Amino acid sequence: MYHPIATQMQTQLEREKGDLVGATTFRLGSVTIDVESTDGIGGLIQEWLQQWAIENGYDCRDASPIAGTQGFPDFFIGDESALLEIKTFNSNRSPSFDIANFESYHESISENPSRLDADYLIFGYEVIDGGIRITDVWLKKIWQITCPSERYPLKTQIKRNTIYNIRPGTWYSENVQYSMFSNVEEFVTALNQTKDQYDSI
Amino acid sequence: MYHPIATQMQTQLEREKGDLVGATTFRLGSVTIDVESTDGIGGLIQEWLQQWAIENGYDCRDASPIAGTQGFPDFFIGDESALLEIKTFNSNRSPSFDIANFESYHESISENPSRLDADYLIFGYEVIDGGIRITDVWLKKIWQITCPSERYPLKTQIKRNTIYNIRPGTWYSENVQYSMFSNVEEFVTALNQTKDQYDSI
Repeated sequence: MYHPIATQMQTQLEREKGDLVGATTFRLGSVTIDVESTDGIGGLIQEWLQQWAIENGYDCRDASPIAGTQGFPDFFIGDESALLEIKTFNSNRSPSFDIANFESYHESISENPSRLDADYLIFGYEVIDGGIRITDVWLKKIWQITCPSERYPLKTQIKRNTIYNIRPGTWYSENVQYSMFSNVEEFVTALNQTKDQYDSI
Repeated sequence: MYHPIATQMQTQLEREKGDLVGATTFRLGSVTIDVESTDGIGGLIQEWLQQWAIENGYDCRDASPIAGTQGFPDFFIGDESALLEIKTFNSNRSPSFDIANFESYHESISENPSRLDADYLIFGYEVIDGGIRITDVWLKKIWQITCPSERYPLKTQIKRNTIYNIRPGTWYSENVQYSMFSNVEEFVTALNQTKDQYDSI
């Protein structure tokens, strides 16, 4: 189901996660500091993964020259340029990263349904003294990390009745009010129903 | 006019700025990358300055335990706990940092007029290959970096007719449409007039 290169990467990362302890440092002149803030850690892990993939011989190529730095996907993998997205969250909290902008995603999959098949490589980290530690590395499809919500058939980020982003459920927990979808069709149905309900307000 | 410790710090920083070349690195496991993005550089320079002040023997103390990390001021200096704010901008562009929230600042100086006397230590940097370089270090009072604008007697950041922040003029340029204020009274008058005009819309 997942691209074989993504599977190999996830397997190696999960196996080596005990060694994935790190930190951000800032040097100016002769004074160097350890940066306490985890603002922007997602971007750092993504930049890091590019280098890690090169050093470990994976064909995992930065997609930003084509897709833009904020675009989709983050990486192309293998000869067929399969789609790989990177997500990151503090695993001591529930995941709350943006999977995709709701309207853009809805529009894009009618033009480009192969997006539904993108792999998501997800890093959970925890903050430790002076840095971070990777606690989990998952490989998922979008329908395995999304679920319904009370408000709409698809869980989204909503502010002042406006839907902004598709947001994940807690896919690794047994104890959730709404289960993740069982297959891609369930996800697409929920996406379309949410769009219809939202447009009819 | 400025606190003597702030003056000494600025003098040393300006003298040593040629050596103030630096970079952000992110390490995770055995792979280390140079971070290209300058997002959050202001916070990094502020954290760095704290360490630099300690190593150089200046009595310049982090104010965030009292004022909060987003609060005012950034540092207390000397026995009298004089107020020091740190600002940072890319010196290849016009300065556009937020000096202070307009409404909060207006309210606070009636309760706490000593805020008008705070020193602002301002770092100009440029992006170089793999990092940044400090190009200028200024020490200023608020009225020396603020000016009128076409819209209001005090230049501010305005979005959809709402005033958000007090914004600086280009204090180091000869060629500006509006000059900086000449003294603190001119600044306070402009602040109050802006408040009055804004409230009467």
